[in-house]
Amino acid sequence: MKIAVQGLGRMGMQIARKLAESGEHTVIAHNRSHEPIDEAVSYGAVKAYEKADVIREFGGDRVVIWIMLPDTVVDAQVDEWLALVPQGSIIIDGGNSNFVMTQKLNEKVTAAGMHLIDIGVSGGIWGYQNGFCMMAGGGTDATFASIEPALKTLAQPEGAYHYFGESGSGHFVKMTHNAVEYGMMEALAEGYHILKEGPYKNLDLAAAGEVWQHHSVITSWLNELARDALRENPNLDGISGYVAENGEARYTLEAAKAAGVKMPVVQDSLDVRIASQHGEVSFATKLLAAIRNKFGGHALNGEGAEPGIREQVAHEPAEGPQA
Amino acid sequence: MKIAVQGLGRMGMQIARKLAESGEHTVIAHNRSHEPIDEAVSYGAVKAYEKADVIREFGGDRVVIWIMLPDTVVDAQVDEWLALVPQGSIIIDGGNSNFVMTQKLNEKVTAAGMHLIDIGVSGGIWGYQNGFCMMAGGGTDATFASIEPALKTLAQPEGAYHYFGESGSGHFVKMTHNAVEYGMMEALAEGYHILKEGPYKNLDLAAAGEVWQHHSVITSWLNELARDALRENPNLDGISGYVAENGEARYTLEAAKAAGVKMPVVQDSLDVRIASQHGEVSFATKLLAAIRNKFGGHALNGEGAEPGIREQVAHEPAEGPQA
Repeated sequence: MKIAVQGLGRMGMQIARKLAESGEHTVIAHNRSHEPIDEAVSYGAVKAYEKADVIREFGGDRVVIWIMLPDTVVDAQVDEWLALVPQGSIIIDGGNSNFVMTQKLNEKVTAAGMHLIDIGVSGGIWGYQNGFCMMAGGGTDATFASIEPALKTLAQPEGAYHYFGESGSGHFVKMTHNAVEYGMMEALAEGYHILKEGPYKNLDLAAAGEVWQHHSVITSWLNELARDALRENPNLDGISGYVAENGEARYTLEAAKAAGVKMPVVQDSLDVRIASQHGEVSFATKLLAAIRNKFGGHALNGEGAEPGIREQVAHEPAEGPQA
Repeated sequence: MKIAVQGLGRMGMQIARKLAESGEHTVIAHNRSHEPIDEAVSYGAVKAYEKADVIREFGGDRVVIWIMLPDTVVDAQVDEWLALVPQGSIIIDGGNSNFVMTQKLNEKVTAAGMHLIDIGVSGGIWGYQNGFCMMAGGGTDATFASIEPALKTLAQPEGAYHYFGESGSGHFVKMTHNAVEYGMMEALAEGYHILKEGPYKNLDLAAAGEVWQHHSVITSWLNELARDALRENPNLDGISGYVAENGEARYTLEAAKAAGVKMPVVQDSLDVRIASQHGEVSFATKLLAAIRNKFGGHALNGEGAEPGIREQVAHEPAEGPQA
């Protein structure tokens, strides 16, 4: 299929690359700055410096545009596209937008005669290699079927996708995933914290992480990443303990409040991160930052990063959402 | 090696069975009631209805006894063994004893001229098949080396063990593992709860669980089990929502308080379970019970189980700790 990707950041670039390199799709690469476009071209994509170039590449047909941008700019970008694209075009919001915004945006897009499909993408910076994990909603069964070939490619070799139906449901399931992620990470971080500062002073934390990866009940990708972080840097030296958060847990807690659902662990996990941003740091928050760096290439130290640490960051995006 | 196993419950039976069936060890099976001993004999173990039978089977040599009992009876049982076994004998406490009790017990055992090795065992009822995950402490390097052949067998094919050194450290790392388990399970349960009762009324929860197992950030054994539970029983019908707890999170929180380490997520996870025992149940606590049943064969409904549900429980132990 022919598909445009806008927003060639950490995740968007890998999506464009994986689609282009498969040889099964024509990928049109678009981004605010030109350098990432040129990188995407090196993977086999077609360059489109301007939105008009994207439209032209589709030769008058309805377009399919996968937008991979921070949620704060999605609405304005969609407005620009709506003014340009042919009727029946499909816009995919692949970022971490709040499902409430997605539902509103869907009304606007549908009223304009277009389709909006929302896809939450997990798998961090490893999706290119392992296959992405994608949660989709919105559009119609037919429009979803028309973009499915791209998802099949992106899921190779071990990823997956599922279409949940209603508009916003893909983002809602992804948002919930991220809230669970906050809680699971915090549980692990608390565990390693007491291993480190509890009654036994010289426990081998990386060895605990390794043994836990062998059919213990908490065997998980997050623990694998914690183990790796502790192997490389047992005392987490040079990590400030500042932990960023991108809104997903907050949005989930808003939905939970509205539904009368209690989520104390997700609330605590968010509170710990916010407190870390005001100086309440510990071995646990250092480990949270280290794990985020491992799966998402997120900066280790938020704003306060030292140059030497920042260099560990895999790929700073031109623009684009965090994993 | 020659090794006795006392406490042929859910976990103890599988340990005895795996050791006996390997053909590499002579396993002497001992239990309060005789029926499980006869079952162990069918797997190749040697029967020992009485403690004196155990001693006799070792022919006057120092004995190695793996005790797999609830923590409440370990101390009294060790006292009985100390009165019977030759100097230099090794007692392995493989249950979920509090590391503080283990440290005290170790003083008594050492003073009597014996060795106490503490091993926390994870892997639930799947350890027989997958290999157990074992966290060891106590004894000396030499005594640990002398029991290592048994651990090598029990870890086959994909389990693992690690020796952390000081007395109680194996139980401490296992206790911490269980506290992390509480937090990770609660995070998952909260996520599925909002998927179930949030703004989208007909989300396919098992599909969410399945897609999350494909290289999402929360890919984990616990999520795999949640997915399975939701596939089999999407509304978790017939599950009361009563969630048991066996002390590990409480012990961890005591250690955390003593060390000045904050563990809000572990605390909340414990609080949710205690509240569930006083009637505060929800889809989340039902899922917790369902997941516990999946990994540990724990009763689905605590005291209030219906007969039909209890039958789903894999194996009710004669005695022995829960996984």
